[in-house]
Amino acid sequence: MSVTVVGSVALDTVETPSGTNTEGLGGAAMFFSLAAANFTRVNLIGVVGDDFPKEHVDLLASRDIDLEGLEHAEGKSFRWTGKYHDDINLRDTLDTQLGVFETFQPKLTAAAKDAKYLFLGNIHPALQLDVLSQANADFVALDTMNLWINETREDLEKVLAKIDCLIINDEEIFDLTGEKNIVRGARKIQDMGPSIVAAKKGEHGCVLFAGNQLFSAPAFPMAEVVDPTGAGDTFAGGFMGYIAQQDSVEFETLKKAVIYGSVTASYTCEDFGPERLKEVTPDSIITRFDAFVALSKF
Amino acid sequence: MSVTVVGSVALDTVETPSGTNTEGLGGAAMFFSLAAANFTRVNLIGVVGDDFPKEHVDLLASRDIDLEGLEHAEGKSFRWTGKYHDDINLRDTLDTQLGVFETFQPKLTAAAKDAKYLFLGNIHPALQLDVLSQANADFVALDTMNLWINETREDLEKVLAKIDCLIINDEEIFDLTGEKNIVRGARKIQDMGPSIVAAKKGEHGCVLFAGNQLFSAPAFPMAEVVDPTGAGDTFAGGFMGYIAQQDSVEFETLKKAVIYGSVTASYTCEDFGPERLKEVTPDSIITRFDAFVALSKF
Repeated sequence: MSVTVVGSVALDTVETPSGTNTEGLGGAAMFFSLAAANFTRVNLIGVVGDDFPKEHVDLLASRDIDLEGLEHAEGKSFRWTGKYHDDINLRDTLDTQLGVFETFQPKLTAAAKDAKYLFLGNIHPALQLDVLSQANADFVALDTMNLWINETREDLEKVLAKIDCLIINDEEIFDLTGEKNIVRGARKIQDMGPSIVAAKKGEHGCVLFAGNQLFSAPAFPMAEVVDPTGAGDTFAGGFMGYIAQQDSVEFETLKKAVIYGSVTASYTCEDFGPERLKEVTPDSIITRFDAFVALSKF
Repeated sequence: MSVTVVGSVALDTVETPSGTNTEGLGGAAMFFSLAAANFTRVNLIGVVGDDFPKEHVDLLASRDIDLEGLEHAEGKSFRWTGKYHDDINLRDTLDTQLGVFETFQPKLTAAAKDAKYLFLGNIHPALQLDVLSQANADFVALDTMNLWINETREDLEKVLAKIDCLIINDEEIFDLTGEKNIVRGARKIQDMGPSIVAAKKGEHGCVLFAGNQLFSAPAFPMAEVVDPTGAGDTFAGGFMGYIAQQDSVEFETLKKAVIYGSVTASYTCEDFGPERLKEVTPDSIITRFDAFVALSKF
């Protein structure tokens, strides 16, 4: 089954302790799509400006990604500039230029509407609601961020009430629920709507809550992280891609989806932007999945 | 096989968001012993003052713990006072009264000398070296802290060169090696001596390095942490207790030992001091081990 993703495609300028990458390919929907396309067909709904390099579009087009829904608008592409600390878990946003993304009004293509699986990337919850009203998906997952939690909470609660799965990191859980404890926070989120909560803890792995069931997975231990930008979006892409490929939201499938998400995300961290991710194949993901099994089984 | 532990037995006054516990039973060697005694015979080497409540000694004596090496010295028992933040992962030490612990000179009993497994609790590395010279253990694990890493590094390096296993948390890895990455840090520590490094990450689990092998385990997810004091020492007790019980340091045993350590430590967090831990039985640990298997297998 195919998966539809709505979100940003961007040009990222990133400084990390390993170096600087200027105006590289970025954006949540881009990372999601490159990851998910290892598992299934992806419909990408997004917007780029007329300055967007053709090579980036060609890269995406070379994968199992339907770009009919990638709008090319007049104006500048979304640009983000960030700098990571020596502690690579910390970063500062230095600049955000929304460009054509500021007035982005997602319009689902016929294929995007009919996809059984939908991922609502991190955009204004009012837009997420609008996309939901266009889509026929059976299973909807959502990403959000502190900005929407704090500034547009009413809209966010409306969309949370309608979705199946929230993919969220630990800090956002605290912001959304006031709970400093992931287990209590996730239970509160389940009461808001989504029966499934995937609580991402970065280098510490992920805890999955599905109804009353719980699954705790470590992250893939890495000796070197070059650039973690997009790791969370890659996780979501691997997670949703595997679910769509298996066409199942059974707990056993969801657990494996968490591991596939973690494994795929580990590639993203190994180089700037999608430099490493774009070399990844379904086979290499399976090899690393097996390595993950080996290092976590007892 | 039995295990010997050398370390503190104390009276802890602890304030957490759940309440206050005044002069409760505490100390690393105490938590270690209560945990390990669920698996094997423990020889406890420590010191208490003449003000130490008899009920605490009676509690330890009621378990499979040899107290012949628990010295009763003239003077005050070691007292520690700490306060946890709303974020229970953070705490401040408000007061430390070393009392009789200040001049503690560990003397191993015959049984303690002959134990095949030895845990050097968090004391001055010169004392740890002295204990090592008294002992006939085949397998030695060690705990330390930032104080010794920063103030007595030369002695610490001497003892590290002689031991088999370092149990250490992520912050201490950074202090000891200058590496902000656990994988790189653990490899550096292995170069200092111990072939095995158990890197504790608190609520995020543990990564075990054994030679070139690696095992990553999540923590047991908890909805409520009343008091995490002693959780790390309890982990060490469950870890070493299981290894001594199995009389094996094979990788497969070490991995299960990490899980038994985590599971036993989860009990400690559920109430103040050892209040919950002291109710635990080998059977309840096995039940929770099985629950851990269920929530982490995929």
